[in-house]
Amino acid sequence: MAIVVQKYGGSSVANADKIRNVARRIAEAHKKGNKVVAVVSALGDTTDDLIGLAKQINANPEPREMDLLLSTGEIVSSTLMAMALHAMGFKAVALSGPQAGISTDSSFSRARILGIEPKRIIKEIDKGNIVIVAGFQGMTAEMDVTTLGRGGSDTTAVALAASLKAGICEIYTDVEGVYTADPRIVEEARKLEDIGYEEMLEMATSGAKVVHHRAVELGEVYNMPILVASSFVDTPGTIIHGGKNMEARNKVRGIAHDLDVAKITVTGVPDRPGIAAAIFQPLAKAGISVDTIVQNASANNITDLTFTVSRNDLSKAMSIVKPVAKEIGAKECLSDSKLGKVSIIGTGMQNTPGYAAKMFQTLFEQGINIQLITTSEIRITCIISEDKIKEAVKALHKAFALEQSKAGS
Amino acid sequence: MAIVVQKYGGSSVANADKIRNVARRIAEAHKKGNKVVAVVSALGDTTDDLIGLAKQINANPEPREMDLLLSTGEIVSSTLMAMALHAMGFKAVALSGPQAGISTDSSFSRARILGIEPKRIIKEIDKGNIVIVAGFQGMTAEMDVTTLGRGGSDTTAVALAASLKAGICEIYTDVEGVYTADPRIVEEARKLEDIGYEEMLEMATSGAKVVHHRAVELGEVYNMPILVASSFVDTPGTIIHGGKNMEARNKVRGIAHDLDVAKITVTGVPDRPGIAAAIFQPLAKAGISVDTIVQNASANNITDLTFTVSRNDLSKAMSIVKPVAKEIGAKECLSDSKLGKVSIIGTGMQNTPGYAAKMFQTLFEQGINIQLITTSEIRITCIISEDKIKEAVKALHKAFALEQSKAGS
Repeated sequence: MAIVVQKYGGSSVANADKIRNVARRIAEAHKKGNKVVAVVSALGDTTDDLIGLAKQINANPEPREMDLLLSTGEIVSSTLMAMALHAMGFKAVALSGPQAGISTDSSFSRARILGIEPKRIIKEIDKGNIVIVAGFQGMTAEMDVTTLGRGGSDTTAVALAASLKAGICEIYTDVEGVYTADPRIVEEARKLEDIGYEEMLEMATSGAKVVHHRAVELGEVYNMPILVASSFVDTPGTIIHGGKNMEARNKVRGIAHDLDVAKITVTGVPDRPGIAAAIFQPLAKAGISVDTIVQNASANNITDLTFTVSRNDLSKAMSIVKPVAKEIGAKECLSDSKLGKVSIIGTGMQNTPGYAAKMFQTLFEQGINIQLITTSEIRITCIISEDKIKEAVKALHKAFALEQSKAGS
Repeated sequence: MAIVVQKYGGSSVANADKIRNVARRIAEAHKKGNKVVAVVSALGDTTDDLIGLAKQINANPEPREMDLLLSTGEIVSSTLMAMALHAMGFKAVALSGPQAGISTDSSFSRARILGIEPKRIIKEIDKGNIVIVAGFQGMTAEMDVTTLGRGGSDTTAVALAASLKAGICEIYTDVEGVYTADPRIVEEARKLEDIGYEEMLEMATSGAKVVHHRAVELGEVYNMPILVASSFVDTPGTIIHGGKNMEARNKVRGIAHDLDVAKITVTGVPDRPGIAAAIFQPLAKAGISVDTIVQNASANNITDLTFTVSRNDLSKAMSIVKPVAKEIGAKECLSDSKLGKVSIIGTGMQNTPGYAAKMFQTLFEQGINIQLITTSEIRITCIISEDKIKEAVKALHKAFALEQSKAGS
């Protein structure tokens, strides 16, 4: 009997009927002869509701207490899921993250899994139980409860699959798989049968929020195949894996986009060593993630420095950067919050000329102005005006013929 | 610096304002130089809400999963309380029952505390933290989360006070102390300055639901004084203790009553060994608590057996007793759910004649028919019609002159 690890997100367990629906799916996998371990997120909006409750009491709650508070959401859903399985006549047991043996560091609100001791899970499987694990949480060596940050239940599932040597980690969600582009924007968008870890990582960090990128990273480290599929309908999903055929593919696999982009430009920056550190260290200390960074070629030892942050962080970032800019003798700080990014993603693109040119030509033909460009080995990203994003995604999908399964090259 | 353990019930922490109010009270005790450990119950109706949620999924949930589910209620309130203290500028830390080192047996939903390892609590106190402990919960040796049953937070508080060698355990609630009778019924009811453990136990099990009886028992075992006082107003409460003067008191201390009484009578029972076991063993197995049991003197080897259960258990108890009654050749099973009990309580009553006679005479003068009588060393209880309870409590309070502080003898 193989061990199968499944994960169900918050929208899949939002109420009693949906919990019963998921319980039936878990039971199906069990009836097929698998040893099933299912990870669940908190019910629907529970996490946001708990955050709201905390903010009524303290505008800036301590992360340690916040994590202990938020961990209750997944405990509630895991116990209800076990109860639903009992009601259907199956043996099941609910385990909190600590009970499941998930050890983390003590970075509250974004803890990293240090290891899993699956003794208890194996004991319960051996007793014939379906094991339901509360996602998103673990415990430090000091017995403090931690959470893994948003999307943490995906990470829990992949880490459990790796430590239990499962054949596959199945992530069930409210979409049917990974698409060549957002189907709400591109009608012809096609569901991919499979995708490589690196490609999926670029898709995830470029705006395709299907699986959390930490889960994909972990999948890659342990070479654990991840199935992404719908928890509502029975259609084949997308398998994220690291097959050998990946390397040779050399084609665009998908278009990702993200509307959560704000840009800060510091103009008239003296071009001398230490300037970048002076600007980015205080941002890092304030916990602000900087995405793209571009520095224009210097003339007369004066340069312009541009970088992007998420929109939520813009005002905080500006309040940090402005005094620094003054101190280092820069000219001014400009910001623009109405931006988006669009990316083409595919293994081997960098080694094959023509992708970037085709992308820029396509955007030009639509009359879309490119503000910033960044590239990785398998991704080219353009930052453009927010109101042009849909148009750009559609045009690029068509230009690379992604509606055809053998296309994209 | 003395360690003070405080406990706040669910109605004292029902919303953000009330949580802040309790946080101020905890902070006051801390500012007086005490090392404060505060135990909190779940917010308002949380426990009932979680039970409702579970019943939507499974009419008969597994106790293990139910306990894990219910334990989240007190974790939420303990974290919010710590956050409220942080917002007021105090150092505080929230601990779940397991983190606080509370070990229990594995009788889910009514677990008994086996021991407390207060290492973590002491470490946090030494760091200058106010420690907030989630009440009502603990952990088995297998790391399963348990709950202590209704009123369990009182038990948590007294057990913590004992293990930390606190000077006193303060239980703050929505009443101002222990009264000579329910003040909603008897206008002249007087708040007692102090009361003995045994007397309080009889009060608690006879319907005065101020402190849970298990907490009082534990207080007696460890000789831990328990203060019962209001969490809303600053008036002196009642101290439950075991002073030497208790023994010699010889007077009625209070009148307790309980409306949750149902009676089952099995008539025409053959009076032979094993009959009582045949009836009460299946009830015990079904988890039904039987309160009073009375068997009338036997004539012709035929007897009537009467016992009381709580009203909730009546229909289940009848369905168990009826077939047994038939099997053992009894005549019939009768039930009455419209009963109540009224008790007079005081140390040393049994050694002093006249209390029982005065009680029966008082009820007779009110035209109240007594259906059953039971006594303990320090209590006399009469079971009477539900609609006569108020009248009986008022008349007995007056007859024993409980409105006068030196009276009752």
